Order: sequence, then structure tokens, then C-alpha cells
Amino acid sequence: MANIKDIAKMAGVSVTTVSRVLNNQPYVSADKRDAVIRAMEESNYQRNINAVHLSTGKTFLIGVVVPFSNNPYFGVLIDGIAKEALHNNYKLVLFQTNYEVDREIDALTMLKNKQIDSLIICSRICGWDIINDYLSYGPIVLCEDARGTKVSSTFIDHYKSFSIALEYLYQKGHRQIGYCIGRRTGSNSQQRETAYKDFLAKFNQPLDPNIIFYECLNFEDGEQIVQRLQNMSHPPSALLVANDQVAAGILTCCKKQNISIPNELAIMGFDNQPIAKIMNITTLEIPLNEVGRKLFLQAMDNTTISHEEILVRLIERSTV
Amino acid sequence: MANIKDIAKMAGVSVTTVSRVLNNQPYVSADKRDAVIRAMEESNYQRNINAVHLSTGKTFLIGVVVPFSNNPYFGVLIDGIAKEALHNNYKLVLFQTNYEVDREIDALTMLKNKQIDSLIICSRICGWDIINDYLSYGPIVLCEDARGTKVSSTFIDHYKSFSIALEYLYQKGHRQIGYCIGRRTGSNSQQRETAYKDFLAKFNQPLDPNIIFYECLNFEDGEQIVQRLQNMSHPPSALLVANDQVAAGILTCCKKQNISIPNELAIMGFDNQPIAKIMNITTLEIPLNEVGRKLFLQAMDNTTISHEEILVRLIERSTV
Repeated sequence: MANIKDIAKMAGVSVTTVSRVLNNQPYVSADKRDAVIRAMEESNYQRNINAVHLSTGKTFLIGVVVPFSNNPYFGVLIDGIAKEALHNNYKLVLFQTNYEVDREIDALTMLKNKQIDSLIICSRICGWDIINDYLSYGPIVLCEDARGTKVSSTFIDHYKSFSIALEYLYQKGHRQIGYCIGRRTGSNSQQRETAYKDFLAKFNQPLDPNIIFYECLNFEDGEQIVQRLQNMSHPPSALLVANDQVAAGILTCCKKQNISIPNELAIMGFDNQPIAKIMNITTLEIPLNEVGRKLFLQAMDNTTISHEEILVRLIERSTV
Repeated sequence: MANIKDIAKMAGVSVTTVSRVLNNQPYVSADKRDAVIRAMEESNYQRNINAVHLSTGKTFLIGVVVPFSNNPYFGVLIDGIAKEALHNNYKLVLFQTNYEVDREIDALTMLKNKQIDSLIICSRICGWDIINDYLSYGPIVLCEDARGTKVSSTFIDHYKSFSIALEYLYQKGHRQIGYCIGRRTGSNSQQRETAYKDFLAKFNQPLDPNIIFYECLNFEDGEQIVQRLQNMSHPPSALLVANDQVAAGILTCCKKQNISIPNELAIMGFDNQPIAKIMNITTLEIPLNEVGRKLFLQAMDNTTISHEEILVRLIERSTV
């Protein structure tokens, strides 16, 4: 394959001139520049777009950090980002972190190395001490409430939406409400925990740690939740489940065990995924595709820091 | 940020010398080479890895083409590829094509432009006339039976696995077996269609096009299939469903409509996704994570063309 020396020979110019053209520097006559570009077009050298990236500083790649790819929540979010990326002629570099710090740093390092133009972090494991170190290298966008920070964000107010759901369940007569979430430590989970504690305090309810379930991510996690419920002397009368997949898993297992829904257990999901519609699960709709699109547009913008709150909507069906 | 000229100045060498170091060319003394590398390390220039890619010709990026990201089949496949990529310190560039030719050509063009080292196509829309044009630019790996071609592949023999499933349903007494697949035109679907026709011919069964369902991709597609079944005067006694999500959707809708499974309708899924286990769906297991890992390893290998068949396994549960 042609290298910079071959191009110089073909164009009848010096290697320095080729370098200048590649690096978009001045002091090259129009004739020589044309000759270099022609030689690059005629040879394979032109095919190595990394040379072009060197001169433009743009890769047209956007990094997307997700903990897992095999999870419908992140699947729909990636889908939304990918659709908007396509409109803008960008490609996505996928970083699947499994919530390991080193993998998230890999993504941040690619931003630093200019291998990607921006980075969207759909769910974060690194602390702000690490994130802040990379802010100067390009836009970092978060899918969490990052108001008051130096990165753009598109987010659901999880405090607000959890409060809406809890008050709805309370209105329906429930006094022993449990909840199921994914990671305990994520910032979204912390907002939810605060909403839960404030709700209990408001209605003078005691906190029962047995009816809070962590690490609930997929359909199959429903099985062990139902198992644990069946071994309780005081099971909750309602569960707020932070993901429709898990809600669907719980519902399916309850039906198997002849637990009557919503009479013996009310179930409230989150997201309004297709499975919630089919299984008639009461849920809070999050327009994840729209979230994905907005995250992408923020990642494109390297001049403004913006924060977009996406509103949830209560969808009443048959499980509460 | 430092450019090639700044590096030359810092290192006390000519721009040509810097170019030579960047392009890994001979005729540079060890001292000068060290001075250039030191200058690159001390400046931001070192940060632009695209310069390194120019000299090594490697990006450590692997392209992955999928039609959709919001589909559990491709989610698990991406997950398998991503896990093996991580072990090998590679990142994935995701191309979501929605089965549009231009988007798949985008991915092939990035291979041509050396923006990615290899390309894994999980489900293809482009014909061989197009694929063949890109073979010289790097490994292209397919997730379909590509024996006899110039690309590596990891595949399920869909003719064989469909035949196994059909004969199992026949043994269970079914004489009116329908099937549900995704795209009609994909090479996997064509193998399945041939298996179906050969099966009917073997047992002297007539072909009833009304009991073949196309464009069945997601859980929610189960709804319209059950609707169509209910309007038939001669509905099938069994359905072979090429995707557990769709099988789960059909099962859920049948339960809603009080259609007894498997007495009134036997349902056989494909993949053995978690939902099949929870809902007790008889299925053919495809180890998709393993498929993903093998696809990645083939994409790493730019010297050998190989073809790996992954075997399916019948898992008897309660829906047949």
C-alpha cells in the first residue's frame, strides 16, 4: 500500500509538502496541494481515512457506554442513539462495561486519544473524580441528572417518578409497598431510595429492608423475587419494579404459583416496554428512544452544556 | 495542540524525519527516532492515536453489523462478541442497518478505509456481488452458512435444525404444522423454507401458505399471529417459531384467549432465551454467546478462512 513517501513521489513533491497537506497547514501552493490530493486519490493511501482524521481532527465516531448489551432497556436506548447517529452520518463505538471501572476508563481514554469525537455514558460506574479528568478532550454526555456539573445530560427525575408511583399505590390502598431495582449504588437508585424513604416518612410508615430487592435486571430475576416473597410472613401488598422485564418475570411466576394479581400482589413496572403492553402491566412510561436521540444530539454539541429532563407518564393497566 | 511541525521543532529534527518515524520507515537514526518519540510523548500529539494507526495499520476496532439493537437475539450475540473483544483489547463499532443496503455498505466502506480492522455481519442484506468487492480490505465474517465462499463463518445449519423440530412435532402427532420466521428473503429463512418443503414432501403433506407467518421478530408480534389463527377455519395444530420472544408472545396471547397449550396449539421456540425457560417453552437451544465469541475469533484471524457449525439442542418443556 502507498505510504507518504510514495505519494510524494507520485505527486512530484517533497514528503514535507505531503505532510503539510495532510495536516492542513499553510505554505503549500494550490498546484502542489492538488497534485498531492490527486496522488492520494489514485493510490490506496487515500483509503486510509485515519490520515484524514489526523488533519480534520474528526472521526465521526461516538462512543456509547452501556453495562450490558443483552438487556432490553439498553437495547432500546442504543437503538434511539443509533437512529439519530445515522441521520448525522456518525457511527457508534460500543463499550460494554459490565460496570467495571477499567472498561469505562477505556472509553474515556479513547475520547482522550481522539479515536471518538464524544462519549455517551448510558449508565456510569466511574466517580466524578475520574470523569472530570476527561472533560477537556470532548463532549461527555450522561443519562442521569447531571445538573450542576460540567457535562450535558438527558435524564428522568427518578425521585419524582418514584414518588408518583408510590403515591399512586398508596391511593390504591397499599400500605406495605416494596421495590425492586438494579444496582444499589447508581445515582438513579440513590434518587429512588431517597424518594422511598421520604414517602415512608410522609405517611408514617416503617422501613422494612426485607421488601427491597436489589440486582433485579432481567426477566429471569422475577423467579427468585417470587420465591423470596413466598417465604415471607409479611410480604408486601405491592411492588414497584424499576424495569418492565423484571415486572413481567414476577407476573409470570406469580401466575405459575397461583398468586392472584393485583389482589394478592400489585405490580407496577417502569419503561412501558412492549412486554408491559402485551402482559397488561401497569407502568410508568419512559420514552427511551427519545432519550437516546437527545443524548446523541447533546454529544454532537461541543459548545453548550445542556440538561434535558424527560417526563414519565403513568399508564394504568391491570396489575395494580 | 502540537502538530507534526511542532514535534519536529521540539525534537530538533526535520518534518521529514518525524514523518518517517510516524510511518515506521527506515533511514532514521536511533537518536533522532528517540527524540521524536520523546517530543510526541511530551506534547498532545502523542494523544492522537490516529497517527499511531497510520503507522501500525491497526485500529483495534471491529465492526459489528446488526439489523436492530432492540432485539434480544442480537443483544445476546453482541454480548458474546463484546466479551471476547474485551479479552483481546478490541472495541466494537456498531452498525445498525435496519436491513438497508446503504447502511451495510457504510460498514464495508469503513473496512475499506481501514477505520476498522475486520467486520462481523450478524445478519446480511447485501448480496455476494457487493461483499466480494470488499474481501481484499480485511476479514469479513458472517453468521450464516458461508461454506464454499471466501469469508469465514460461524453458523447454525438451519435446514438441519428446522428438520429436527418438524420431525419432533410430527412424532408428537401433529399433521398441520405452521411456522413463524423473520425476513422471508434471508439465507437462514431460505434454508428453513427448503427444510419445510422437504418435510412436507417426505410425509405427503400439502403446503398451506396461510400457516406460514413472516416478519415475526418481537414479543408483540405474537398478538397478530394469534389473531390470525383465531380467524382460520383450519388453524395449525402446531407452530414452529424461529425466535423465543415471538413464541413467548404467542403463548401469552393464547393464555389470554383461553387457547389451551399444547392441546389446541403446540408451540416450539428457537434459541432457548431466558424467557423460554421461565415460560416453560419447548425450544431448540442455540448457544448465541458462543456463536458471538467464535465470530470474534474468526474476525481476528486474517490468514485463514474457517467455517464453524454450532449445533442446536432440543429442550423438551411443556408447550409441545
